[in-house]
Amino acid sequence: MTTPARPAVLAQNQYGKAENRVVRITRDGDTHHIKDLNVSVALSGDMEEVHYSGSNANVLPTDTTKNTVYAFAKEHGIESAEQFGIHLARHFVTSQEPIGQARIRIEEYSWQRIGTPDKQHSFAREGQETRVTQITYDGSSWQVVSGLKDLVVLNSTDSEFWGYVKDKYTTLKETHDRILATEVSARWRFGWTDDAQPAPDWEESYAQVRRHLLDAFAETYSLSLQQTLYQMGARIIEHRDEIDEVRFSLPNKHHFLVDLEPFGLKNDNEVYYAADRPYGLIEATVLRDGREALIPVDLTNL
Amino acid sequence: MTTPARPAVLAQNQYGKAENRVVRITRDGDTHHIKDLNVSVALSGDMEEVHYSGSNANVLPTDTTKNTVYAFAKEHGIESAEQFGIHLARHFVTSQEPIGQARIRIEEYSWQRIGTPDKQHSFAREGQETRVTQITYDGSSWQVVSGLKDLVVLNSTDSEFWGYVKDKYTTLKETHDRILATEVSARWRFGWTDDAQPAPDWEESYAQVRRHLLDAFAETYSLSLQQTLYQMGARIIEHRDEIDEVRFSLPNKHHFLVDLEPFGLKNDNEVYYAADRPYGLIEATVLRDGREALIPVDLTNL
Amino acid sequence: MTTPARPAVLAQNQYGKAENRVVRITRDGDTHHIKDLNVSVALSGDMEEVHYSGSNANVLPTDTTKNTVYAFAKEHGIESAEQFGIHLARHFVTSQEPIGQARIRIEEYSWQRIGTPDKQHSFAREGQETRVTQITYDGSSWQVVSGLKDLVVLNSTDSEFWGYVKDKYTTLKETHDRILATEVSARWRFGWTDDAQPAPDWEESYAQVRRHLLDAFAETYSLSLQQTLYQMGARIIEHRDEIDEVRFSLPNKHHFLVDLEPFGLKNDNEVYYAADRPYGLIEATVLRDGREALIPVDLTNL
Amino acid sequence: MTTPARPAVLAQNQYGKAENRVVRITRDGDTHHIKDLNVSVALSGDMEEVHYSGSNANVLPTDTTKNTVYAFAKEHGIESAEQFGIHLARHFVTSQEPIGQARIRIEEYSWQRIGTPDKQHSFAREGQETRVTQITYDGSSWQVVSGLKDLVVLNSTDSEFWGYVKDKYTTLKETHDRILATEVSARWRFGWTDDAQPAPDWEESYAQVRRHLLDAFAETYSLSLQQTLYQMGARIIEHRDEIDEVRFSLPNKHHFLVDLEPFGLKNDNEVYYAADRPYGLIEATVLRDGREALIPVDLTNL
Repeated sequence: MTTPARPAVLAQNQYGKAENRVVRITRDGDTHHIKDLNVSVALSGDMEEVHYSGSNANVLPTDTTKNTVYAFAKEHGIESAEQFGIHLARHFVTSQEPIGQARIRIEEYSWQRIGTPDKQHSFAREGQETRVTQITYDGSSWQVVSGLKDLVVLNSTDSEFWGYVKDKYTTLKETHDRILATEVSARWRFGWTDDAQPAPDWEESYAQVRRHLLDAFAETYSLSLQQTLYQMGARIIEHRDEIDEVRFSLPNKHHFLVDLEPFGLKNDNEVYYAADRPYGLIEATVLRDGREALIPVDLTNL
Repeated sequence: MTTPARPAVLAQNQYGKAENRVVRITRDGDTHHIKDLNVSVALSGDMEEVHYSGSNANVLPTDTTKNTVYAFAKEHGIESAEQFGIHLARHFVTSQEPIGQARIRIEEYSWQRIGTPDKQHSFAREGQETRVTQITYDGSSWQVVSGLKDLVVLNSTDSEFWGYVKDKYTTLKETHDRILATEVSARWRFGWTDDAQPAPDWEESYAQVRRHLLDAFAETYSLSLQQTLYQMGARIIEHRDEIDEVRFSLPNKHHFLVDLEPFGLKNDNEVYYAADRPYGLIEATVLRDGREALIPVDLTNL
Repeated sequence: MTTPARPAVLAQNQYGKAENRVVRITRDGDTHHIKDLNVSVALSGDMEEVHYSGSNANVLPTDTTKNTVYAFAKEHGIESAEQFGIHLARHFVTSQEPIGQARIRIEEYSWQRIGTPDKQHSFAREGQETRVTQITYDGSSWQVVSGLKDLVVLNSTDSEFWGYVKDKYTTLKETHDRILATEVSARWRFGWTDDAQPAPDWEESYAQVRRHLLDAFAETYSLSLQQTLYQMGARIIEHRDEIDEVRFSLPNKHHFLVDLEPFGLKNDNEVYYAADRPYGLIEATVLRDGREALIPVDLTNL
Repeated sequence: MTTPARPAVLAQNQYGKAENRVVRITRDGDTHHIKDLNVSVALSGDMEEVHYSGSNANVLPTDTTKNTVYAFAKEHGIESAEQFGIHLARHFVTSQEPIGQARIRIEEYSWQRIGTPDKQHSFAREGQETRVTQITYDGSSWQVVSGLKDLVVLNSTDSEFWGYVKDKYTTLKETHDRILATEVSARWRFGWTDDAQPAPDWEESYAQVRRHLLDAFAETYSLSLQQTLYQMGARIIEHRDEIDEVRFSLPNKHHFLVDLEPFGLKNDNEVYYAADRPYGLIEATVLRDGREALIPVDLTNL
């Protein structure tokens, strides 16, 4: 069908079922294992007609994409969020002619065991960070971007802030000892793009990247949150060969020293007010030298 | 001042500053300790005139209650949320004639250490449950109700549901093996009411109550969430002499087995859909025999 | 079945399905009407055994209470949230022997028409307040408490705050012209309790109570938020005979005048910082003289 | 300062103060006007050193960007969110050598008047959509993208869904009469880029774009949400010359017809269950023919 001349034309587009909550229990005798995911599917391709005329002839219903997520949890199991997303993306692109690209976004919630060692089927949800991944596949090459969000960290010292630009609107006082706290949102892109290459060990990679990120935060004597950000990214790039790029969004969660002098008290870096808004927002990408920055900018909102 | 006859009269009332976010760092050489609280103050007493005429003659400003929270974090430190609330409540009731009662509600956020052992000033926030407490004082006796919220737990087996009432609107099928999951909101009241009695060890008590609650959840072979609820409460009452009453609000976080038969697959308790709404909501109080139920009903919304 | 002696006994309890989202469309030719509710059911009665032994012999499943909500939306329609709750509560109490009391809580979301007048089936959701109601029935008498939440209002002048108590922690400066803003959460109890009495016109009552509440907020020259609260309650009591009691929870949403002097600017009540936390929290009940205060304290969290 | 060779290099980056809540009251005698904004500043430019070494020599503190927002609300007033953002962006780029680009994001909350006509200083916040805008300036050309989010709309008929692809995971039944509901998130880009061009009337433009969007939603007989999306975009492009591009993110807020047959009831498109998750997610850009799609992909998360 030819598209008639129109004053308004369709540009980028995608569709699918978002936030499919799938929990997979694997029983190994009395020991159960749990994988708890939130899976969002976005498909794109030859979809002009559904926008222009409402013809659904090329449209695989979002309800079907949901069913596929649940069926694949049975058929393939869930070895890791990344591997599960790879199965799904490959399926949509290879099984449906009009679909040129599939993007699978997954949040993973982790659980720890509770109760007695002899019965291993009780869990408490770990509330710290949420692990995320995004798999994109166009039929020939892969992009895998993994990460985490909502990981709140704090250094109660070893942070300074001074030597900055002053203009007529500057009132901030310099400080040589402050709390530095942030809620880490990070995304890292794997160099792996091709089925012919050996895939990374996704679970091990996540554990190691997270460790380096936390270590760098804790160990950096910080003159600015930007410096801490770079150190976290650089540490990952230096230690993890499978990662080419790391993108951070770091809100500076301000902890203001409370002025207790009106009450005749000295506040020697002891009592802080944890503010909500506004907050500084520091965002940057750290890249392996010689590589290209490819993480889509909306990924920090994954 | 006498109150004139009015068609509309004032009944219960209270006021204060809510959600004061206070972070207290204590430095023990290079080892830092952190207490992270959200403190809400509510005062009541001889407050008719401010409602009827707007006279603030008996009103300690909410801004002052906020200042007091921060000043007390310095003056008294924060040994525990409970102890901090006791200091505050006593102060407001004893220092201001018109104030007959003070109620202090506190949320506490916990942090764990990260980084190398030689530098102990780096933390990551534990995201699991939020610890809460409410201290009420009227000048002579204390009521302390502590608890937790947002603790999500799951048993992947050892849960059944059958033998229930069927009416014309019943379609649910009985099951002998299901996931049982809930987000625990619990409040427990201490027997301690009097300064002359020795106060409990608040930190140790919290740790032990939490442990018994989790153990009872994990170990109960459950025929209904109500049964699990009672077991959690009874375990606490039996093991912790300082607790007289436990109140629970337990949403039944349904995990529905996905029907995979249309796809030619058998779902042998493997793949579940984690639903948001609606959810069952099971609420009850478990009481030490012979004692009175005193936890205010709105406390589950603390 | 007799209950054996136990160290821990069951006290108050209730259960049911919470947050059933039901949308009812009524077609009057081409003109459609919409009712959009969130219905929560809580039942109580002879429920000891399910807690003690897990026997569900007296338990109507929460799944059945959900089905009943949807079936009743068809069988009875939804004339008003209150009337719908009355149908449901009566059904549960009268149809099931072990159920001694039913409590139905409903949130209602309102929609306004959009589009051309000839096709009346398009709507946009009004985002202002959420209307709420709670119906309680024990087989003989009714309690109906209706209300609203999330209604944000602001006076940009005609508000003062001075003449308050000062103690050693007071730093607040008195003001004779400030912004007064709050997010109204209000609950009002109807005098109607008995099927023999004529029931109020629930829809008209809501519209009128809301109007008086807003008018009183706008027209009160305020010396304290407590005074404004009382005026809102008194106005309702005076104008609406069907209402006996009004309970408010009013966060004082502080708007702080920004100090622009460091930049050589005078801020003549023009530029404000809208703060999040902490906030003053003013709570009180206004009662028809001679009546009793009966609104449960947790209703402000409805 | 030369940057040494590093395995990990800095790529894109930006920083600033996010979510500055500014309320501006303008008094015109007894008639007050209110503008209520949430302003986020992001600056970028010559910022390598602060990341590599922690030197803040090129860094204007985020605290200063906050002060500037408040000072400008006094100095320039707030004519419209767009105009206010233009003032801010121009200031940062032109006043600070190292800053090459400024991006200002603004949310605007609208208020309607309440109370008697003689006193015009009382307002209730309209809860419907949030208006948003993003201003980007690099010292020579402007990009202005405005929009709205959280506007929930529903057609109770005139929506079908059939004729779609079926594969082995498809179970959905075709329908010729369904509810179509979505929560509109839309962003539209203005053709205006140059100070030499006359700027649009930002307030009038918003009102008209919103009207066309709503009209198109209501009037489109829909065979798919994609078709409705295109119609909304095309209507804006056709009627508003100042707009070159419209980007939508439309969750399909499913309303499922409840099966009442088990209760002997026929559900003739009357009773629906409003689901939370999962939801279809339809995203696309509609472009003026001959123009380029330039709205950044993360803008739908503005």
